[in-house]
Amino acid sequence: MKDNYHFVAISGSLRNKSYNTMVLKAAQKLAPANIAIEQILITDVPMYNFDLHEKILPESVEKISTAIKTADALIIVTPEYNYSIPGALKNVIDFLSKHPAKPFDKKAVGIISASPSLLGGVRAQYHLRQILVAVNAMSMNVPEVVITEVNKKFDENGNLTDEKTKEFLEKFIVALADHSSILSSEVLIE
Amino acid sequence: MKDNYHFVAISGSLRNKSYNTMVLKAAQKLAPANIAIEQILITDVPMYNFDLHEKILPESVEKISTAIKTADALIIVTPEYNYSIPGALKNVIDFLSKHPAKPFDKKAVGIISASPSLLGGVRAQYHLRQILVAVNAMSMNVPEVVITEVNKKFDENGNLTDEKTKEFLEKFIVALADHSSILSSEVLIE
Repeated sequence: MKDNYHFVAISGSLRNKSYNTMVLKAAQKLAPANIAIEQILITDVPMYNFDLHEKILPESVEKISTAIKTADALIIVTPEYNYSIPGALKNVIDFLSKHPAKPFDKKAVGIISASPSLLGGVRAQYHLRQILVAVNAMSMNVPEVVITEVNKKFDENGNLTDEKTKEFLEKFIVALADHSSILSSEVLIE
Repeated sequence: MKDNYHFVAISGSLRNKSYNTMVLKAAQKLAPANIAIEQILITDVPMYNFDLHEKILPESVEKISTAIKTADALIIVTPEYNYSIPGALKNVIDFLSKHPAKPFDKKAVGIISASPSLLGGVRAQYHLRQILVAVNAMSMNVPEVVITEVNKKFDENGNLTDEKTKEFLEKFIVALADHSSILSSEVLIE
């Protein structure tokens, strides 16, 4: 275990009052004092086009790549759009997969989905897990955080009010710190 | 069966010399005289953002929606990016799923994937099938067209040279016309 952790976190929804972004912000508040969670915005990432981006990647992509590369872990909070992840989120992963720094490679990743539906976006989670295999990200298996009926779990000021969800998020954050530590540990032979 | 069919077709790759777009153009040439295949471009579709697009959908999306809505069938030719469909293609589907005209609803859809790899983008096809369930599109099951090592199947002028692929595409186009006819047929009781 390290003394301090620096996580970065992406919300798959671009809108301002996104429940997924609210979950991200709730996680920031619930994190223990030694784990900082920094939000990364993906709003400025253009649509990937080989002709335009083969040689020069946009500055927004460079910035995200560096942020993930230098973080102890990445949290992705995603809504479900049409039984999968949003096109915008997939596009960011596609872009980053072209970056020579390989920001996802062996990176500890924690996945959360949230949706007003009774299924909580779980179908999107499993598409995302398959996609993350392609970039050799090390997705954490458990605890799985699938937030159903998310619209009932926040007050009008965007504060998380559901105690069980708070507990899950706290466990998830600590587990992700452990997961990242295991991945970065070196085997010492004395 | 109808006398004439009008299909529309989307390539999931935005680059000019895309093999997937070459496959689309090969299908246009191989189609029998009574089946016209019109290419729809998705290059101008912006990233979906509820805040910007809740009330007014972009003109590019309106155009694509109408084209699909009025076509007998839709062909999607997709590459595989990170074990799934490109973010740009997913984004178009996300956008169209918000259109009140519901352009995918009960629409006959034929899926093709093409890739220089030995797997031909088949993982992307199965993500796409799941996504199309969400919009109630009627994806054709067979024949499945998975074009492996696509880079070896075209000449330097972008002409399809592989005879087996030509045969597959011809069968696929005729089968899609049948599929669309079955879906639009009304049961007559005399």
